[in-house]
This record gives sequence, structure tokens and C-alpha cells, in this order.
Amino acid sequence: MSENSNIGTYKFIAEPFHVDFTGHLTMGVLGNHLLNCAGFHSTDRGFGIATLNEDNYTWVLSRLAIELDEMPYQYEDFSIQTWVENVYRLFTDRNFALINKEGHKIGYARSVWAMISVNTRKPADLLALHHGSILDYVCEEPCPIEKPSRIKVASEKVKASLEAKYSDIDINGHVNSIRYIEHILDLFPIKLYKEQRIRRFEMAYVAESYYGDVLTFYIDDIGDGIYNIEVKKNGTEVVCRSKVIFTEK
Amino acid sequence: MSENSNIGTYKFIAEPFHVDFTGHLTMGVLGNHLLNCAGFHSTDRGFGIATLNEDNYTWVLSRLAIELDEMPYQYEDFSIQTWVENVYRLFTDRNFALINKEGHKIGYARSVWAMISVNTRKPADLLALHHGSILDYVCEEPCPIEKPSRIKVASEKVKASLEAKYSDIDINGHVNSIRYIEHILDLFPIKLYKEQRIRRFEMAYVAESYYGDVLTFYIDDIGDGIYNIEVKKNGTEVVCRSKVIFTEK
Repeated sequence: MSENSNIGTYKFIAEPFHVDFTGHLTMGVLGNHLLNCAGFHSTDRGFGIATLNEDNYTWVLSRLAIELDEMPYQYEDFSIQTWVENVYRLFTDRNFALINKEGHKIGYARSVWAMISVNTRKPADLLALHHGSILDYVCEEPCPIEKPSRIKVASEKVKASLEAKYSDIDINGHVNSIRYIEHILDLFPIKLYKEQRIRRFEMAYVAESYYGDVLTFYIDDIGDGIYNIEVKKNGTEVVCRSKVIFTEK
Repeated sequence: MSENSNIGTYKFIAEPFHVDFTGHLTMGVLGNHLLNCAGFHSTDRGFGIATLNEDNYTWVLSRLAIELDEMPYQYEDFSIQTWVENVYRLFTDRNFALINKEGHKIGYARSVWAMISVNTRKPADLLALHHGSILDYVCEEPCPIEKPSRIKVASEKVKASLEAKYSDIDINGHVNSIRYIEHILDLFPIKLYKEQRIRRFEMAYVAESYYGDVLTFYIDDIGDGIYNIEVKKNGTEVVCRSKVIFTEK
């Protein structure tokens, strides 16, 4: 299926400031690359942010789930493939494969996106857009990882707290999607990363936060290396939830 | 001089998660690109980290000064040129030009590097390495910005404080050079970035800091948009100093 023209393939190299202390690409940088690939792929097909903005629409990332056997090491070449799995009226599923320097698939990711009106913030009907031509790009490539799960967090004990600063804020004035990933991974002690690696990482984006918002982090340790995390702004509203599953190296 | 083979030219695009709330590339990302270009350029000439590591040597960034008329905007193409200006026994000066999508030079940077032994942490004699062949790459390209200055900070009032976390640490186990830039820029209120832009940014790297170190930030407001910053670890040892010069947009 790899020659399928509905699959976009993009090449990368694991840059020195994009790897962690173990020398492997960070989850935040991988997330950034995945979202960029989504952007390249949709732009090439007439559904990119720039085109949408002309009509006052934009894509909003709702869910992201990444599951990996390994992460590229510093200076290694790797590539990311992306394709559209499903299009519904209000959501679309976009999947990814991570391919190492030898050409082997070492991981997959699933993402769920909505399109909203920039003016009203209300969701758009994806099937009505461009006379439904987005359906032409749906592609039956396998993505053998589970869909993003429903994450629940019971803890009310603040594990960490920070104020959203200049470097956290994107062009839309929101704390950017990647920064949440970094802040969440910073909840764990470096000892854990020495002994284990992240096998699966999930994000559910619920609401936007802004410059000066105080973000508080709550964590449930489920056992077996599974952690559920909730991020709230200003002590009340949920901003996002995450599930991190560690495994032995 | 642009066809000079001693000048390396590298192409980039301003990615969405690499721009700030104004839509312009962040200084941290630009710094990352500059250091990557230094890596590409030296690797191509046999002086890259990978080659050096075989002999147990590595490059250490000592100073960085960036001065800009403008910053690339989201999705804009730009390129970075780099070349070696001087080689001394213990230091080498590497310069950069930032070139916008129209091909105009919109900024420059200067950097100062030492080479150290990985085992002893002592500086190496650059002129002795590879029989002095590094001198073959010295190049007389203009770089019309001032050299990195000597930065002094008088303030003893802690402006901000943070603990170095997982995401701050690089493959060498140190807080990475780019993270300091981001943490320093987060000292300033977003209001300042709305009204002004950074015209010149300097870093002087003095000592390494590590996971769990508490970094404290001190700032002198010199007036005319000039700020001198000092970062200490664990309340005592200076880790780095920075000068940030803002100007009207």
C-alpha cells in the first residue's frame, strides 16, 4: 500500500537539541513533526490551514495517541507517513507511521481533528466542505494501535503548577499543543526515563489556556507503568488529559 | 562572496510550533538552527562532533550573539549561511547570516567555540588538530555586528526560579543551550513582546547545570530596552549570562 498516493511521506533527522538525555528523540518533538506532517499533507490536498483561513476555518487537534517500539537516535534519519482513515461530519481520523533509518515501521500514531469557524468557534461540517472532496483522500492503510482512550483522573492533589509564559504561547494566543506534552513529561523523575521508555502516549485536548493562566497538574498512578494526567487552568477548568504508559527498555 | 565554498548555506521553513504569538520565529528556535548549521558545516569538513568523539574531543559553545532587523514569519522560507572567521589556539569564531525568503540578509550572528577533551574536560589546541587544517576553512565574509560583549549583572534579587527537569536535559546530561534561551525570554512579560521586538540577543555560557539543579535568574534593567541577565545554579555558581536588547517594532 506504500505507493498509495493518498499517503504522504516526509523525511527527518533526529537533531541534537531534539533528543533527550538518552539520545532518543523526545515525544514533544515527535508530536511536533506529526502535526507538521498533517499540515503538509492537508495543504497539498487543498485542506491546509492557509486555504481554510481564507474561508475563516481552521483545524483543531482533539486527540493524539502515539505508540512506539523504539525512538530514533540522535543524527539518525527517519520518516513519517500520514493518511486520512475516516471522515465524519464533525471529526476526521488521521493516522501516522514512524519509519526508522532501515525502513522498518517502529511506531504508529492516531489523531482526531475537528474543523471550526474562526469567528464563531463552532464546528464545521467536514462533509459539506469542498463538496465532500475530503472523502477522496480516505485511505485503507493499517494502523495497528488502539484508538485514543477515554482518560479519567481522580487525584485532586496538585503534582506541579506553573504559569503559562511567553514561550508557551502560539500564534493563536493559546498555550501550544506541544508545550503541554513537554510539561506533562516533566512531571516524571529522570530515574524513570533511565530505566524505562514511553511505549504509549495519549493527549486529549479539551479547552484552550492562555498567557498568565496558572496550569495545575494532577496524576493518577494506575500501576503497571500507566499514568493518567489532568491539566487544569486556574484551579478549575480542565484543559487537557494525558495517558503515559512506560515499559521496560 | 556568496559562491565561496567555505560558506555553508542551509534552508529552513518557519514551522507553526516554532513561532511565537506574533507569528515570528522564536529566538530559541533560531539559536537551535544556528547550532545545527554549525554542526552540518563542521561535519562536512571533518570537524564534526561525531568525528571528534572518536578522538574523545567535543565542541563547546562559549558565546553567541544574534542581531536582527526582522524574524521570519510562520511558513516563510529562509536560509542560514555560516562560515569560520578566525581560529585561535583555544577558540574559533564562527559567524552566520540570516537570509529571508527574498534573499535579503536580515540578520547576523557570531559564536565562539572551544574544543575540549571529553575525558579531562580540558581545552584542546585547535591549531594542532588535523595538522592545522581547520585554518583552510577561514573565510573573509563580512559580519557587520558587534562581537559578544562582556556582560555584568549587579542585581541580587531573584526574578525567577525553576528546577531543571527532564525536558531541559541534553544527551550530555546538561541543561541544553537552547533551554536557557527560552527560560531567559520567559522572564519578560508578553506586553513587551507586543510592543517591541528583540534587536540583539547575547548568551555567554559559563558552566554546566544538571537535572535537579535549581536555576535562579537575576536581571538588571539598564534602560533603553537593554537587559542583562545572570543565571545561577543552586544559589551560588554562575551558569550563564545574557544580554537582551529590545527595540520598537
